[in-house]
Amino acid sequence: MSLSEPPEAVAARVDVLAAARWLAGRVLRTPVLRAPAIDRLAGARVLLKAENLQAGGSYKMRGGLLAAGRLAAAGHRGVVAQSTGNHAVATALAAQRFGLAATVVLPVDATLTKVARARAAGAAVLLAGTTVEERLAVARQVSDETGHPIVDAYDHPDVVAGQGTASLELIEEAERAGTPLDTLVLPVGGGGGVAGACLAAAGRPIKVYGVEPCGADSLARSLAAGHPVAVEPAPTIADGLRPSCVGELPFAILRTRLSGAAQVDDDEIAAAFRLLLLELKVLVEPSGAAGLAGVLRLATEGTSRSLASEGAPEPSTEHADDGRRRTVGVVLTGGNVTAELVAELTAAARPEQRMAMV
Amino acid sequence: MSLSEPPEAVAARVDVLAAARWLAGRVLRTPVLRAPAIDRLAGARVLLKAENLQAGGSYKMRGGLLAAGRLAAAGHRGVVAQSTGNHAVATALAAQRFGLAATVVLPVDATLTKVARARAAGAAVLLAGTTVEERLAVARQVSDETGHPIVDAYDHPDVVAGQGTASLELIEEAERAGTPLDTLVLPVGGGGGVAGACLAAAGRPIKVYGVEPCGADSLARSLAAGHPVAVEPAPTIADGLRPSCVGELPFAILRTRLSGAAQVDDDEIAAAFRLLLLELKVLVEPSGAAGLAGVLRLATEGTSRSLASEGAPEPSTEHADDGRRRTVGVVLTGGNVTAELVAELTAAARPEQRMAMV
Repeated sequence: MSLSEPPEAVAARVDVLAAARWLAGRVLRTPVLRAPAIDRLAGARVLLKAENLQAGGSYKMRGGLLAAGRLAAAGHRGVVAQSTGNHAVATALAAQRFGLAATVVLPVDATLTKVARARAAGAAVLLAGTTVEERLAVARQVSDETGHPIVDAYDHPDVVAGQGTASLELIEEAERAGTPLDTLVLPVGGGGGVAGACLAAAGRPIKVYGVEPCGADSLARSLAAGHPVAVEPAPTIADGLRPSCVGELPFAILRTRLSGAAQVDDDEIAAAFRLLLLELKVLVEPSGAAGLAGVLRLATEGTSRSLASEGAPEPSTEHADDGRRRTVGVVLTGGNVTAELVAELTAAARPEQRMAMV
Repeated sequence: MSLSEPPEAVAARVDVLAAARWLAGRVLRTPVLRAPAIDRLAGARVLLKAENLQAGGSYKMRGGLLAAGRLAAAGHRGVVAQSTGNHAVATALAAQRFGLAATVVLPVDATLTKVARARAAGAAVLLAGTTVEERLAVARQVSDETGHPIVDAYDHPDVVAGQGTASLELIEEAERAGTPLDTLVLPVGGGGGVAGACLAAAGRPIKVYGVEPCGADSLARSLAAGHPVAVEPAPTIADGLRPSCVGELPFAILRTRLSGAAQVDDDEIAAAFRLLLLELKVLVEPSGAAGLAGVLRLATEGTSRSLASEGAPEPSTEHADDGRRRTVGVVLTGGNVTAELVAELTAAARPEQRMAMV
């Protein structure tokens, strides 16, 4: 650990390390995968952490389990959560494991797979509106009535630390393999995962980037403004990246530690989805594929123009300053998709794209 | 190792162990995955060895690499192979790694992904007819003209031993986890993989089963007849399981060691494909999903009626004789699929199937 690290950051990194110790054996240690075609397209060695294979189908299980475990240990009997889906599923499964009652609030247009998974885990599922504000209002009402605390989907220290353990595993595995990360890229919804990644990477020379859909670029606007800025999220296939505003707690970490934020459109996300499916052979939901879409956009541009922070370096340039081949880590955050969307996104592959991929 | 094991079997198991030592670090050690929904449907603990994530997209890389490595060490300058696809891809990649010239012969109706992957690895690709006899005739001609030996897709000791290492890794990982396999199930084309599984399991109380498409049941007919019996393979989405006859070498192993052969139809294979995609989050080609389809058929039947060998026990009964929950291992042998077939198979999911899966 670097002595030049400010004290509060050291403490926060310690939270990720403590979360990793507590979660060891409680969550799946997901594999790190590679595909030659993805390396070629990115112009770098790309290490993909397959959290779509995590219990519950997403890395949200890490933070959800840590938060629920702490509540159970403190004597609570139940928990309330709101999210676009994966945090609700994770909270439902985590509550089931610790014998807590769970109430989860999802949008009325939530992915059916996520609603069904939360119900299957025994949670009471409420559907409310389409915005985070509408869901929060219902969650607060349930919390007031039952006395069960809310575990926020990203504005919660256990969630940030828990999600950060996925990045920590990737960072450590890359080091053990002799190919330490130069860059680490995650999708951004409320910013909990990428904030956890910043903490996990603290003290190491790793640039961390966030990727958000073009029409839901709260993080880029917030970084430019210096404070959280809400947006009216446009429709996107990345249903998990639709929160209207980056969380206060993640933003406090991201504003000083993040190297930049990239934006990708639905076509780029769909192309990354197909690449992960047909080349890496794993099913990653569009939100989870956005990180790779960001890496490929930056590789194509070969510049830092799409990065929100001024002066950010080019993360996908083929070689590091010392001539080593650059290594880029990407967390594939989730894999909960309906059969319909898989059919739609694979049918949309153009023949020339398909051949270009092999 | 059991003393009651006949000597030739001990020797053959030794070949798998030697292959595993040679392949360590040369192939990916693929993860063993699980999904609660699959356990529920199978009525057992199901451990799935994700060889669809193997280099080249299938477990054929193991035997192909071992065979090519031996040829290169013996001073050969090239290699010839014929197959429905994955062995050709594996041989092309293995030849590339050892600096050998490769000529591979595939059927005219081969999966485009497999043709493109073999070409991308620098092999000369020839397309010949639709039957194994037509491909073999061309392969023999090329071998005669070039002097480069043929590595058969299954009738070759290195291929049987190499493919057996996937089963060995699964057997050993299940033991380390404290849940040793009661049953091990693989799809059957020419029988090389399941013969390797029998060798890997030798000396342990593991029942090994093979699964073949209903219209390409050479193994079941061969077991009944006591010698290899060729069939006219009917069309099936499991393009890798279409060889007209089980190989001589695999059959010599299978006739005394296999516990039985199950047959599955295309609908059952498609259902297993969707289950692996949406629940396990991995893309497995139909041929590679046939093993799980066999496990689910046996679980549904709850009897040994579909097994070719008389008196075979029920592999998917929920509990072993001693009351432990039964553990079933399945090797997911490959994942090379076109976008079109993914779209077709996911669009075909009926709503009630989709909900039943969550």
